[in-house]
Amino acid sequence: MLVGSRMTYPVITISPRATLDSANDLINKESIHSLPVVDRQGRLLGLITKDKIDSVLCKNGSTNEVESELLVEDFMMTQVLTVTENTPIEEAARIISDYDIKSLPVIRGNYVVGIITATSLIRIFLEMTGARSQGIRLTLQVEDVPGKIFSIFKKICEMNGNVVSFSTYNSEEKGYKMMTLKIDGIEKYELKQAITPLVYKVADIR
Amino acid sequence: MLVGSRMTYPVITISPRATLDSANDLINKESIHSLPVVDRQGRLLGLITKDKIDSVLCKNGSTNEVESELLVEDFMMTQVLTVTENTPIEEAARIISDYDIKSLPVIRGNYVVGIITATSLIRIFLEMTGARSQGIRLTLQVEDVPGKIFSIFKKICEMNGNVVSFSTYNSEEKGYKMMTLKIDGIEKYELKQAITPLVYKVADIR
Repeated sequence: MLVGSRMTYPVITISPRATLDSANDLINKESIHSLPVVDRQGRLLGLITKDKIDSVLCKNGSTNEVESELLVEDFMMTQVLTVTENTPIEEAARIISDYDIKSLPVIRGNYVVGIITATSLIRIFLEMTGARSQGIRLTLQVEDVPGKIFSIFKKICEMNGNVVSFSTYNSEEKGYKMMTLKIDGIEKYELKQAITPLVYKVADIR
Repeated sequence: MLVGSRMTYPVITISPRATLDSANDLINKESIHSLPVVDRQGRLLGLITKDKIDSVLCKNGSTNEVESELLVEDFMMTQVLTVTENTPIEEAARIISDYDIKSLPVIRGNYVVGIITATSLIRIFLEMTGARSQGIRLTLQVEDVPGKIFSIFKKICEMNGNVVSFSTYNSEEKGYKMMTLKIDGIEKYELKQAITPLVYKVADIR
């Protein structure tokens, strides 16, 4: 899955010459966390965040007259991390996690064409784990050996089941992996009976 | 994957009789977004967020004397969404996404035993997609028919490859699904040659 297929667009942006006050209004009205700052052609100049605006406006007192003179360009970050439409979504997630940021503008050349946010990553996570799909959710602890995943898929295929989603992650016990599958088209009891002999443990079925 | 295996604990909490000012200091010091409010026994009474504190302290002026008298209990949310250790992680993600919240206390009985945050969900997402693992990342567009996933896994197994992670998601074209796999132990060119005849399109390989 690439950023281009899951980014939010068009992007709500702001001009560097806008006031912090108007940036604040826009952020609140749109329930967003940050605004890419762009020139008239849509090229990325910086990023202004809700946290930054809050801290500046709060310090100056929210009814202070001086507020109307504060400009976005004087408070925006100018070193902005970005991705392109061709970046894998996991790489965007890695940047957001490693740098503890809330949004990542997507650029084509210097132009802002989309945005990926922490919130949109959670929606994608839901889609990838099939959380909103029907089916039986099965969590297995299996020996971490080649062919193990295959033997489980083979059994499900033989039973005419359909794997809606599948993910693996580390087990707390060495030598094992955990996997969670969402499976459709097989009855729960029948599935448990068939899978149990293939794995170390059926950790959860629901 | 259940919440219990991935929640953050111990949890940083605060007393209802603490001042907003001290809650603010704690939130900033720990770089967190919210604090579960608990009684002396550790039972959940409410939740106080950074956004709430910011808006109250900002309104009152940050150097105002009145600030030191504002108590957490008067500003905390008392209707708090929670999960248990036995809740699937996808269900926690669904709640965080649907209610647009940033954290979810984990309770056992009425006692707070952990917390799941939007940030921790992104870390889990990275783990599940194998973003930090070695291997070839393959994105496929396949016909949405039973047995399709199986045929791909069978081929990888025959080539002595190892599936590090796997996820499916909707294609923009009807009748198709997208899938992203991370595969170890097979050379990139060889993998592409073997998989191409099985699928509608190898959308990306890197």
